[in-house]
Amino acid sequence: MESLMLRINRNRLLETIKVSSSIGATKNGGLNRLALTKEDQAMRNKYVTWLRQEDLQVRYDDFGNIYGRREGKIHDGPAVAVGSHLDTQPCGGRFDGVLGVLTALEVIRVLNEHNIETDYPIEIINFTNEEGARFEPPMLGSGGLTESLAKEFIYNIKDDDNVSFEKALIDSGYLGREKNRIKNIKNFIELHIEQGPILDNQNKSIGIVQGIQGMSWLNVSVTGETNHAGPTPMSNRRDALVPSSKMITKVNELTKEMEGLKTTIGKLHVKPNVTNVIPGEVEFMIDIRHEDDEIRSYAIERLKEQLSTIALMNNVEVTITTDWHSDAVRFSSTVTEAINEAAQKWGYSSLKLFSGPGHDAKYMTRLANSGMIFLPSIHGISHNEQELTLDDDIEKGANTLLYVIQKLANTV
Amino acid sequence: MESLMLRINRNRLLETIKVSSSIGATKNGGLNRLALTKEDQAMRNKYVTWLRQEDLQVRYDDFGNIYGRREGKIHDGPAVAVGSHLDTQPCGGRFDGVLGVLTALEVIRVLNEHNIETDYPIEIINFTNEEGARFEPPMLGSGGLTESLAKEFIYNIKDDDNVSFEKALIDSGYLGREKNRIKNIKNFIELHIEQGPILDNQNKSIGIVQGIQGMSWLNVSVTGETNHAGPTPMSNRRDALVPSSKMITKVNELTKEMEGLKTTIGKLHVKPNVTNVIPGEVEFMIDIRHEDDEIRSYAIERLKEQLSTIALMNNVEVTITTDWHSDAVRFSSTVTEAINEAAQKWGYSSLKLFSGPGHDAKYMTRLANSGMIFLPSIHGISHNEQELTLDDDIEKGANTLLYVIQKLANTV
Repeated sequence: MESLMLRINRNRLLETIKVSSSIGATKNGGLNRLALTKEDQAMRNKYVTWLRQEDLQVRYDDFGNIYGRREGKIHDGPAVAVGSHLDTQPCGGRFDGVLGVLTALEVIRVLNEHNIETDYPIEIINFTNEEGARFEPPMLGSGGLTESLAKEFIYNIKDDDNVSFEKALIDSGYLGREKNRIKNIKNFIELHIEQGPILDNQNKSIGIVQGIQGMSWLNVSVTGETNHAGPTPMSNRRDALVPSSKMITKVNELTKEMEGLKTTIGKLHVKPNVTNVIPGEVEFMIDIRHEDDEIRSYAIERLKEQLSTIALMNNVEVTITTDWHSDAVRFSSTVTEAINEAAQKWGYSSLKLFSGPGHDAKYMTRLANSGMIFLPSIHGISHNEQELTLDDDIEKGANTLLYVIQKLANTV
Repeated sequence: MESLMLRINRNRLLETIKVSSSIGATKNGGLNRLALTKEDQAMRNKYVTWLRQEDLQVRYDDFGNIYGRREGKIHDGPAVAVGSHLDTQPCGGRFDGVLGVLTALEVIRVLNEHNIETDYPIEIINFTNEEGARFEPPMLGSGGLTESLAKEFIYNIKDDDNVSFEKALIDSGYLGREKNRIKNIKNFIELHIEQGPILDNQNKSIGIVQGIQGMSWLNVSVTGETNHAGPTPMSNRRDALVPSSKMITKVNELTKEMEGLKTTIGKLHVKPNVTNVIPGEVEFMIDIRHEDDEIRSYAIERLKEQLSTIALMNNVEVTITTDWHSDAVRFSSTVTEAINEAAQKWGYSSLKLFSGPGHDAKYMTRLANSGMIFLPSIHGISHNEQELTLDDDIEKGANTLLYVIQKLANTV
């Protein structure tokens, strides 16, 4: 067990991150490294050099996902896979995704310099277009690899300049073969910044991610009657906005009744949206999330009842449709327990929590028992040049990852 | 007094309205006769022909307002002015404005055929661009005449095709001299459709308009903090929309506490308006109206207090500014009493009410003791091709106007 407590090389890791922070750097200390752009290509080239320096077997698959394989004692055995993404948002931070790839590389470097051979192979992965900022939707590399998204669909997605994913991939030089996709996986682990304030608020260093919340997007359309504000008496109105405002309050209040439920109304349109015209129509989207799919379903049923009642009492019509939903994911207890054990052994403060946003690990649960380590984002800020994870937390996260990888890559 | 009870010629009046309904007619039975367009010009030409047939002295002023003067016994005495507008909205109705001009013409025809000479002169007026649908703001003709709006301002207003009011006026052939503006006025009376449902709801034929409501437009800006919907716990949010929805409800509820108060929130913007992003900012406009300026001021103070309290309790900032306001107008009791007397004498059902929208009569109160007669709009519909005022009500309105004009144009 002794090697499990090996320390990563803090300075080397921070230097590596610094190099990444210089490729696609923005004026305000962030990164602009959209998937398969010149900046992303430069980062990939640098990354592949690093992989080769560690004698890893490098290959890319037909989605441009880059793998670096370190063989184990059990030759051709199932690999412990670990990784995240090097692409960023247009005004993104230096840590989102990047930490997951570069801490994995640091783990390999430590194992190499100590000549530690694991039972199972280790593969570190950089997934293509996780952000979805250039090619929508997000998580195309992991989505394609796990066959959650069809290859043809992914290849035909166009960016704002009408360039297809396929063309961008070919031009980047990172189009590999389908047979290079990783298949035989024992576990998948992803280290990532939290992109939320919970760890920072509670002053914890290691987030033991239990899963990813399920979510639904409900489209709510409220129809009353458009009329002139001046002459129409209050008692004659069928204003669509007044009951909508009551609905918004109700949707918010439901979270006080149901532990862990999150509701957000972020998008709303008023028609015709003229100061002196009583709104005849209001349309808004409810984003509703919970780690437990049954509770989310129950909450949606409750909301539908409550919104219908408000509509009825205000003499307007309401229609509620589900635009999109994504079920919750539970991570493997094998992985979460290994993370917990690592944090305990190291004496790092930790917290069990759920992820709000999706991650590559979400798709990877389809191929293997998976899990995630979260590190604190100061003030919960992410997708922003101000995004910050402290050096101490990065070091703790990398030590935790080193422990977990060794634990999972060795037979007990 | 006998001549006061003269009847207008219903068939002739309805035929005249029919001619108007054919100039700029839309497929769905409405009118598209924007100010100073070819359609408006055709209507004006026809109208001037009618004025000349009645031996009226015709002139236009420097805003294109058309006057037809019928001399009285008191030569060069102050005139009883009566009128409205012949222009319409792009999908407007056949009655809005038109009835006020054409019933005035019918009154002249009746007086002429009975050779009735009034003590004071009578001038019937067609005001330019009342609707504001081509040149914003509305009521340019009456606004210019009463010097409520500057001539230079009006002349420079451009339509959507960048054509100035001045150019359109010259091209129409209706640019007259400044000295032609009506100056010496005893009273002004405008007959108009209600553009609201009160008379129709209460089954009354004659609206005795007491004045025009005062109104304010308040701009409310609520500022919280933008954040991701997924990771941000409910307790950490500074959502700008949730307190805004409580404010909207409060603004609506205030009307239940204060008799006659009308509040409308017709325009609202959410920022950044993305489904999975907690809104950091919401901006909306409150349209608030009352016939009593003091009550409106008091209501605004109450609203400011209540909205600030909601903001404080929800950890967001709110700023409330007055974008625009217009004080209430009270019509002359001389005119309202004359209308009331006419309705009583004729046995027409009537109702005292306030106007929500502005009208040319609003500006005309600056030149003379003024008043308005409202006729029912079926279901309160206006600015719409479905707009309808029944023939019976038109006849009753015209008889009332004939009575009122005679009454005001004769010394007691």
